[in-house]
Amino acid sequence: MRIVQAQLSAPPTIASLRARELPRSGIRKVYNAARELQAQGVDVIRLDIGDPDFELPARITEATHAALLAGQTHYSPMIGLPEAREAIARHMARKLVARAALPAKDGGQGRPPYEEWLEHIVVNQGATQGLNAALQLTCGIGQSVLLPEIYWPNYIQQCVLGGIEPRFYRLTDHFQPVLEDLACLSDEGTRAVLVNSPSNPTGALFPPETIRAIYDFAVARGMWIVSDEAYCDFVYQGEHVSPLQLDWQLPEDERRVLAVYSFSKSYAATGLRLGWTVSPRADVTLQLATMNEPLTGSLTTPLQFGLAAGLDGDDSAERCAALRPRWQHAGELLRESGLPFDPPAGGLFYFIDISATGLPAEEFAAQLLAEQHVAVVPGDSFGLQPTQQADGTLTFAAGERARRCVRLCFAVPEARMAEGVRRIAGFIKTKTA
Amino acid sequence: MRIVQAQLSAPPTIASLRARELPRSGIRKVYNAARELQAQGVDVIRLDIGDPDFELPARITEATHAALLAGQTHYSPMIGLPEAREAIARHMARKLVARAALPAKDGGQGRPPYEEWLEHIVVNQGATQGLNAALQLTCGIGQSVLLPEIYWPNYIQQCVLGGIEPRFYRLTDHFQPVLEDLACLSDEGTRAVLVNSPSNPTGALFPPETIRAIYDFAVARGMWIVSDEAYCDFVYQGEHVSPLQLDWQLPEDERRVLAVYSFSKSYAATGLRLGWTVSPRADVTLQLATMNEPLTGSLTTPLQFGLAAGLDGDDSAERCAALRPRWQHAGELLRESGLPFDPPAGGLFYFIDISATGLPAEEFAAQLLAEQHVAVVPGDSFGLQPTQQADGTLTFAAGERARRCVRLCFAVPEARMAEGVRRIAGFIKTKTA
Repeated sequence: MRIVQAQLSAPPTIASLRARELPRSGIRKVYNAARELQAQGVDVIRLDIGDPDFELPARITEATHAALLAGQTHYSPMIGLPEAREAIARHMARKLVARAALPAKDGGQGRPPYEEWLEHIVVNQGATQGLNAALQLTCGIGQSVLLPEIYWPNYIQQCVLGGIEPRFYRLTDHFQPVLEDLACLSDEGTRAVLVNSPSNPTGALFPPETIRAIYDFAVARGMWIVSDEAYCDFVYQGEHVSPLQLDWQLPEDERRVLAVYSFSKSYAATGLRLGWTVSPRADVTLQLATMNEPLTGSLTTPLQFGLAAGLDGDDSAERCAALRPRWQHAGELLRESGLPFDPPAGGLFYFIDISATGLPAEEFAAQLLAEQHVAVVPGDSFGLQPTQQADGTLTFAAGERARRCVRLCFAVPEARMAEGVRRIAGFIKTKTA
Repeated sequence: MRIVQAQLSAPPTIASLRARELPRSGIRKVYNAARELQAQGVDVIRLDIGDPDFELPARITEATHAALLAGQTHYSPMIGLPEAREAIARHMARKLVARAALPAKDGGQGRPPYEEWLEHIVVNQGATQGLNAALQLTCGIGQSVLLPEIYWPNYIQQCVLGGIEPRFYRLTDHFQPVLEDLACLSDEGTRAVLVNSPSNPTGALFPPETIRAIYDFAVARGMWIVSDEAYCDFVYQGEHVSPLQLDWQLPEDERRVLAVYSFSKSYAATGLRLGWTVSPRADVTLQLATMNEPLTGSLTTPLQFGLAAGLDGDDSAERCAALRPRWQHAGELLRESGLPFDPPAGGLFYFIDISATGLPAEEFAAQLLAEQHVAVVPGDSFGLQPTQQADGTLTFAAGERARRCVRLCFAVPEARMAEGVRRIAGFIKTKTA
């Protein structure tokens, strides 16, 4: 036993290495800055956070309240309540059955019945917790995962906490994966590819041939696919294709896709913190349920009845339809700024290159908030890359491309969105004039 | 880049090492077995899970419902809603001010005002998530934590997921810490001591001199203390002492206690998944809030209004008072079995040595469930110890002491509890006759 004298009587060092290294999400920095300004009485147009302004559907409130009154306030099974899992299984079967299956190599249809889905469903305390469990299940400490170079920052936080090395595949000018990077970045310790289509923040939708290529790559290398499908119900151009549609054409023991879904976005329920994972195999289902034990202890029981009611009366298409004109209008208004950009095919965001203003994204967002009272998120938040220092610790800095972009959410009431985007376009014009 | 040929075209291995190693909680195994029996129509007396039978207080239901109706269904700040944090700060100030502070070396009183508490409060999605964050913050990958040898199994699951090495301090015959073990087990990589008083499963309450000794040890070694206070409101003999009472006598930058609290037990709200952490310092508060990002994404917004209503009308003492006669009666009935045992000073459980029956605990619990339809948890679940195999992987087996004990919960309705414990005592008598 060796005692380090320097530690004696000292207060403990600030935190474990992983906690010290953990980069704070820039989304939350803006969120807090905007809230502070609002607390001072400033009318801030909040285009920062991906929290659609829709009201929670009444049937969700009613089912939750009924559950509370009925004493549904005790622990639920780690895998989720049967009522919730059955509603999810029905929902998933409906969703994928309604869709054209991808062309299958073996000619299968990839249209499993409801019963087959049920044993693959694990409820999560939000898609974030589901993604954390999926990453920790697929990648051990010291192993690596392939992430897109522009990505939702919680992925890298989960990697840091879990000791997983992130490796970044490049994206084209249109935010599509550079497929040859997958092989170049992988070695035997690379255990999973993360796919997020439609993407937060870019809105890019991966076409069927890209999903097929990534899937075939994962098969060839014996890797998992973690598919973050939080935005799958928000598609304005083209059609969402899930790698599940390929995976479910194979026998269960050859499957490899963990698909994570959010209740938050499709049902205006961001504050209810529910999501679910579709597991490829029975052993993975059991393992994910077990991982809920240390991660959440159990699952919110009354809210799961709300989730069941929400999915059974599926109206997510109405929300997508309501957003479509805002998506279109935001694009038109942004074009007035004179900047070129791709309209996003899906999701809730425009992610635009504002480097023509001469401002780095963080400065752009800070000035926009201070002068125009419009909150957007600097792209830096979505492009953090780790660098190992001489002492072995990690530091994070945004890649050059991310520092040129900002993300703005158009899922706010039409008039507010339009006013916000007008101010942004005007701000850009003054800077590029 | 090296590609392992054996992986080509193979389905991915079952999971990452940590997921494969993760031991499943024996509590949940019994929970599922009992539920299956119930689904077959069997009237099972459930003394397995620590889920008090009290109804959720109506003010919590009402405040939650009002929040849902008021549109409080969107994201909340990562640190928790101001309404919830303020209620927690008031609650914590009341709790510790109401108590005699521990004798302080510097004569301080350890009675901080409400305002001082506020900036130390982080809301969690249940105490389990709070404990996970506290362990990951205090211990890095490859570092170690000191745990009691009989413990709540989620601790070791969190260690496995986080790559933290658990080291176990022994407990005396009365389930009190063997204090000299703390120094013997520690080296420079040992970053925290976990304290759980009253204990789940043993019910042991650590007296002030023990808390003082552990605290002084942590100060001398520059270690953190993670204090799991889930059962602090359930004490039948003696008085609960928190290491916070010592910590808060010191200036903020010398503090080291992360104390984690559960809303579940004190307010009959196990299905609401809320808890909170009292952080020692501003930097730790910020870090814990940041760690909520990858772990939970956000926090259930409407339920936090329920939490605030719950704490502001604090009636946890009524629940403890309601349990006291059951605690006493359960002890009397258990004595009829003829087995010697210590009555627990606190908590919700009796943890008794049933080795005189000649049955290992798992066999005892299985027979009791099958023959008497009473569910209890084998002690194995609370005494798992890891062994490193030749190939470096960990396997888990219960220590000898844990295998001799079972845990039974007396927080069930009096008549059910009495019938269950009578059957247990009778079962023991037939086996020891």
